[in-house]
Amino acid sequence: MPNLRPILLVIGILLTTLGVAMMLPAMIDISMENPDWQVFAIAGLLTLFVGLSLWLANRGFKGDLTLQQAFLLTTLSWLALVTFAAIPFAFAPGIALSYTDAFFESMSGLTTTGSTVITGLDNAPPGILAWRAILQWLGGVGIIVMAIAVLPMLKVGGMQIFRLESSDTSEKILPRAQQIVGSILALYVTLTAICAAAYWSFGMPGAHALAHAMTTIATGGYSTSDASLGNWARPAIQYTAVVFMLLSSLPFALYLQALGGKPSLLIRDHQVRGFFMAIALLVGALILHQVLTGVDTGESAFRAAVFNGVSVMTGTGYATTNYDAWGGFAVTLFFFAMFIGGCAGSTSCGIKIFRFQVIEAAARTHVRRMVHPHGMFTARYNRRTVPLDVISSVMSFFFLFMALFALMAITLSLMGLDTITALSSAATALANVGPGLGDTVGPTGSFATLPDGAKWVLSAGMLLGRLELFTVLVLFLPSFWRQ
Amino acid sequence: MPNLRPILLVIGILLTTLGVAMMLPAMIDISMENPDWQVFAIAGLLTLFVGLSLWLANRGFKGDLTLQQAFLLTTLSWLALVTFAAIPFAFAPGIALSYTDAFFESMSGLTTTGSTVITGLDNAPPGILAWRAILQWLGGVGIIVMAIAVLPMLKVGGMQIFRLESSDTSEKILPRAQQIVGSILALYVTLTAICAAAYWSFGMPGAHALAHAMTTIATGGYSTSDASLGNWARPAIQYTAVVFMLLSSLPFALYLQALGGKPSLLIRDHQVRGFFMAIALLVGALILHQVLTGVDTGESAFRAAVFNGVSVMTGTGYATTNYDAWGGFAVTLFFFAMFIGGCAGSTSCGIKIFRFQVIEAAARTHVRRMVHPHGMFTARYNRRTVPLDVISSVMSFFFLFMALFALMAITLSLMGLDTITALSSAATALANVGPGLGDTVGPTGSFATLPDGAKWVLSAGMLLGRLELFTVLVLFLPSFWRQ
Repeated sequence: MPNLRPILLVIGILLTTLGVAMMLPAMIDISMENPDWQVFAIAGLLTLFVGLSLWLANRGFKGDLTLQQAFLLTTLSWLALVTFAAIPFAFAPGIALSYTDAFFESMSGLTTTGSTVITGLDNAPPGILAWRAILQWLGGVGIIVMAIAVLPMLKVGGMQIFRLESSDTSEKILPRAQQIVGSILALYVTLTAICAAAYWSFGMPGAHALAHAMTTIATGGYSTSDASLGNWARPAIQYTAVVFMLLSSLPFALYLQALGGKPSLLIRDHQVRGFFMAIALLVGALILHQVLTGVDTGESAFRAAVFNGVSVMTGTGYATTNYDAWGGFAVTLFFFAMFIGGCAGSTSCGIKIFRFQVIEAAARTHVRRMVHPHGMFTARYNRRTVPLDVISSVMSFFFLFMALFALMAITLSLMGLDTITALSSAATALANVGPGLGDTVGPTGSFATLPDGAKWVLSAGMLLGRLELFTVLVLFLPSFWRQ
Repeated sequence: MPNLRPILLVIGILLTTLGVAMMLPAMIDISMENPDWQVFAIAGLLTLFVGLSLWLANRGFKGDLTLQQAFLLTTLSWLALVTFAAIPFAFAPGIALSYTDAFFESMSGLTTTGSTVITGLDNAPPGILAWRAILQWLGGVGIIVMAIAVLPMLKVGGMQIFRLESSDTSEKILPRAQQIVGSILALYVTLTAICAAAYWSFGMPGAHALAHAMTTIATGGYSTSDASLGNWARPAIQYTAVVFMLLSSLPFALYLQALGGKPSLLIRDHQVRGFFMAIALLVGALILHQVLTGVDTGESAFRAAVFNGVSVMTGTGYATTNYDAWGGFAVTLFFFAMFIGGCAGSTSCGIKIFRFQVIEAAARTHVRRMVHPHGMFTARYNRRTVPLDVISSVMSFFFLFMALFALMAITLSLMGLDTITALSSAATALANVGPGLGDTVGPTGSFATLPDGAKWVLSAGMLLGRLELFTVLVLFLPSFWRQ
């Protein structure tokens, strides 16, 4: 059994932050004279109390985490945050979800997935709407810090490739996290502020503009309206969302390097280029289809294709139209686009662009070796040779993603979901997208009607997807505990 | 450009065999006084003429194929056979399909897929029914020879792992093929005869018994009735099919070794054990589901689960019941089972058991390395260490299979197919299973109503799947032609 003290210390700090964050919806509810404020205040104090206790009881820890501690910390901290963040959803009188629903909504929020069990958002209490936005926003920044500071050290699913990229060769997880969290947070706040200002300047009321900016930058997709961003018909608002969903799907570390005087790194980055190529292909196909089938024409067709294509592939999950009604081609395309996702080190999820690029490079090498058995070929990514262990990690990730997808879809169908609902729910949870496909969980549907068991399966899927599968699964390995 | 002479020589020999084979349905039609005999006779003579011309014009070749020639030969010979074998389907007055349909039916036959565009089989002319069975039977033996003698030398998708297994370390493709073709054929004929005798002894008329035995051993699935094996209600007939579908999904090379005095190799084989475990899991889940949901009970539920589960996973594609109506769980399960397939070196197709085992071993190693970065771990398969190039080949195959599946499904949906039809048609073609899912191409449907474009896409998919993807795709690599 590893020493739990540093783990409890970090969880204490995180819970303290969450407790403080809960005061925000409490204050909003007080200012709107909504009785929910009491629940937020009590839940916040409880979270603060637990957080501070853990923090103080374990303070004074110096040094760094062992690998084992880092794995445990990652999964446990996420679980602790989700559990406490669910309290307001379960007890606020304005919403009062079952604990299953509250946990699902909280998990979907913190993992920036955006699947929701709440309908009637347009009339939902302001504190609850704020809390949903805050959860996604906090989840988003947490993921970026984790992807830059923690996962490359854990060599999860090929993320070690990004260790080569930074000039910092430190192996220390905690010092590195502390070092970057400030600049990442500053950048994240700035982006959110610009996005909110843009929404607001195009006519969205201030509170809604801020809430949507927070879930846009997190590529989360929680909205303050059942009609999602479709509630605001002005094209400029939707184009604003497109721009910021794309910006939030790029590697944040490259932004920092660009601001530090190396903008060429961002522009020349293999992953960034691949991401924009994939987006162009998807959106291009959707536009062509819209025009050719006559679903829509002109700017409106262009906007519907760009907005919904970008929303699904970045894993944001806003919807302006019911793309489920666009016919078999669009539905099939959206189904596969869900798996792709954005760049590693951003707030978006899915399999991620760099993994497809590494696998493609490896497959290309395999074919060359088949044809020229005596030639020497190595897979390359971002102008560097890809080490064999990275290829094997990436491919293991891809396979595990598919295996978990199949297992989840089969389990969900066993619980009575029809095939399209089961397949798309499993995909949307694992890839942290948000809406699924079909009448039940599609862009106009909700996850509320699913059986409780399915909601727990999907919650587990969201956590697995967000933590890059392996981070959670190693904990079930007996040899993990035998160190 | 490589020397085409040895390629044309082998294609000549194969076409000559096909031409001779066409005389069989001709004779059957003559004996039944069916006018189709003329088309079979003319097509057979044409094929014989082309085949013998190529054979004689290029005879005298000694030695072996280069790698480049072997790749070209594999794809070209399959295409030539399919093209000529389609002639009777297109011109026999008793059936007279369009050339698209004829090519599709011929491709589905020779690749042992079993998807069909023909309805009204129960009243179809005898020569056509015989020709369909003959095509699958020939395709089946062709695949076994190819999998043992050719693909391991070409290192296609990790098949090189089976080169280690045989005591013969010869790198020569043609001599090795000539050496094993006799014993494989003898075994194949014997198995077919036993299977036919079993069908016949349980009450199936002689001709039908033989036709079904030929498509059972080929795990092809063409039947002489629209109701498939459901037309013969006797349980013993269906259990016979189960036994021989299973036997035909095991590595034929191990049968030869077992007959040569080493039965333990067959019993201890990693792939064989994995295959039976996968079958047990699938069938067990189906039985449980049948019983729990009350679809069926007792022996009848057991038989329906065993028969249809084995039929789909081995890629045979017979159906006794419309399992599409069993509900979301069964449909989802069948969808994923299609991808799995049987053992390499058998007549079954799909991704194949050994690939899942290699990937699982590699993923396990990856996880161990994550947890114990300083430990030494190697992936093992069949009590041997798996070389890194095999892992990379296998994973490249898995990824390419999924990428082609997505590309095909998207293309099919663009042609107007609904999502479930598009997804399941793409899977059933690539994995050479036969029926898809849903109303159109499900177990009670037919591929006849699909648009022509979709039939060509699916034909290409069947060829790609049967030749293990890479064998075909290398031909599109510019560097392949620059040797």
